[in-house]
Amino acid sequence: MAAAAWIAVDWGTSNLRVWAMDADDRVIASHTSDQGMGVLERDGFEAALLALIAPYLTSETALPVICCGMVGSRQGWAEAAYATAPCLPPDGKVATRVAAQDPRVSVFILPGVKQLSPPDVMRGEETQIAGFLHRNPDFDGVICLPGTHTKWARISAGEIVNFQTFMTGEAFALFSEQSVLRHSVTTDAFDADTFAASLADAMAHPQALASQLFGLRAASLVADLGAAAARSRLSGLLIGAELAAARPYWLGQNVAIIGASTLAGLYRTGLEAQGLSITLAEVEDMTLSGLIAAHHSLKEVTT
Amino acid sequence: MAAAAWIAVDWGTSNLRVWAMDADDRVIASHTSDQGMGVLERDGFEAALLALIAPYLTSETALPVICCGMVGSRQGWAEAAYATAPCLPPDGKVATRVAAQDPRVSVFILPGVKQLSPPDVMRGEETQIAGFLHRNPDFDGVICLPGTHTKWARISAGEIVNFQTFMTGEAFALFSEQSVLRHSVTTDAFDADTFAASLADAMAHPQALASQLFGLRAASLVADLGAAAARSRLSGLLIGAELAAARPYWLGQNVAIIGASTLAGLYRTGLEAQGLSITLAEVEDMTLSGLIAAHHSLKEVTT
Repeated sequence: MAAAAWIAVDWGTSNLRVWAMDADDRVIASHTSDQGMGVLERDGFEAALLALIAPYLTSETALPVICCGMVGSRQGWAEAAYATAPCLPPDGKVATRVAAQDPRVSVFILPGVKQLSPPDVMRGEETQIAGFLHRNPDFDGVICLPGTHTKWARISAGEIVNFQTFMTGEAFALFSEQSVLRHSVTTDAFDADTFAASLADAMAHPQALASQLFGLRAASLVADLGAAAARSRLSGLLIGAELAAARPYWLGQNVAIIGASTLAGLYRTGLEAQGLSITLAEVEDMTLSGLIAAHHSLKEVTT
Repeated sequence: MAAAAWIAVDWGTSNLRVWAMDADDRVIASHTSDQGMGVLERDGFEAALLALIAPYLTSETALPVICCGMVGSRQGWAEAAYATAPCLPPDGKVATRVAAQDPRVSVFILPGVKQLSPPDVMRGEETQIAGFLHRNPDFDGVICLPGTHTKWARISAGEIVNFQTFMTGEAFALFSEQSVLRHSVTTDAFDADTFAASLADAMAHPQALASQLFGLRAASLVADLGAAAARSRLSGLLIGAELAAARPYWLGQNVAIIGASTLAGLYRTGLEAQGLSITLAEVEDMTLSGLIAAHHSLKEVTT
């Protein structure tokens, strides 16, 4: 096995992902576990990390470990205080050093970014933004990061100028899995035409969302609405309402989407229907790029 | 114990409530259990009913039992097919007779009401509406029935002309108990001023709802928003979005609210701020009044 020069870590609420990196920032191997911040007590983080990276540790030197995500929240391993927008995406110079008990690791957690007015926060997405800007240093425009909590961030001169969070992904999960609508969306199938029509409907009449959700259940009871159409319509209505509310972010802008392929594709469909030209970037790729950039800036400090 | 002449039953998804009634429609006693439709298999309904009404049964005669609510749904004891709006609220003449095994009861289930375009359904609320119209036979206007699934119904000439359902109550429960916002609304306390301001805000900008929900979490993290204020703001935003979408129902109308006191009071607050004069009616009272009216019409058929 090649010797690792450092470890990159994306540590969210639900998952832990590590990459063993060589001295030229090439990936030697990557590993994941379900030991996310949400299931760990404060004294459980180090063991969860060591369980994945033990093969790369040596007694000669403390291996740098650079982490981003919810691991730095108040409920995480150690709180990495937010940077305040407008700001550059946080890099290694402002990372919080964590007191690990094992001398073979030297752990750093990158801060999230907060905004005071209107109040907003991100943890993890700032590293994806840093990764995108590391690859596209001249980018000026808006970055959309779809997910459980979708973020929209205005970028200018390398800075996160301001940003806004939408709970669209979590709302979709709650309505489709926990609400009365779960009886009507009993499929993973998807109907692209219904999605597009529903999204357009919600963008044209976003204020009607509150009245349209129960309509999905009723239509499956009395108008034979199928499960795939119901699921696609729920998705279209919720994403359409978000795009309507986020219009001040994307209107007339240069927009990049950083996301997993399926969800990012839905946002792209909606935005391209508004005449925008979209750049897509893969989320894991951008996270790793951001961690590499952070490691570079950390080396400037520590060497 | 006085002899019961008939039994009134409100059988919803979560609860079962029975009233033993004398021949002059006075309540002898009432009982409740948690044996709602949601926890019962089809062959469990009769036993759940008998567990509450056994003391009132005699071997001489089959006691009439008049039921409303989800007990008549496809997942209930027996399906009572919907009446179709526009229509009078269903009465005893159109009730579905259920084949009970015990000869001491004669069970009837009142149908719900459906609407084909736009698709919508109600089960239980039609009986509350019938009860309200039994007491107020000349009412012409709009009835709002706040709850897990709030209904708005236009009433003219004694008929349900059309209606619309909003999932506001269920959405509040999901967001306050299951979403990331649960960490920010950890109280039952309520702040009336924050509620009123948030409701006005949502009515003025209902399309912004999608962007305001996560703001509650962020404000509690970075702007010291208290739990009572966060909870009141969540309630105000969701009810405000509903009132904005339901404007075609209430604008310039004579509005009655049938509901439990706390929730009905929130809707009244919002509607009075729009200059409306509101009539309040208590939900249990209206349900029983509707079941009494149904029993009268059933007697016309069976005697």
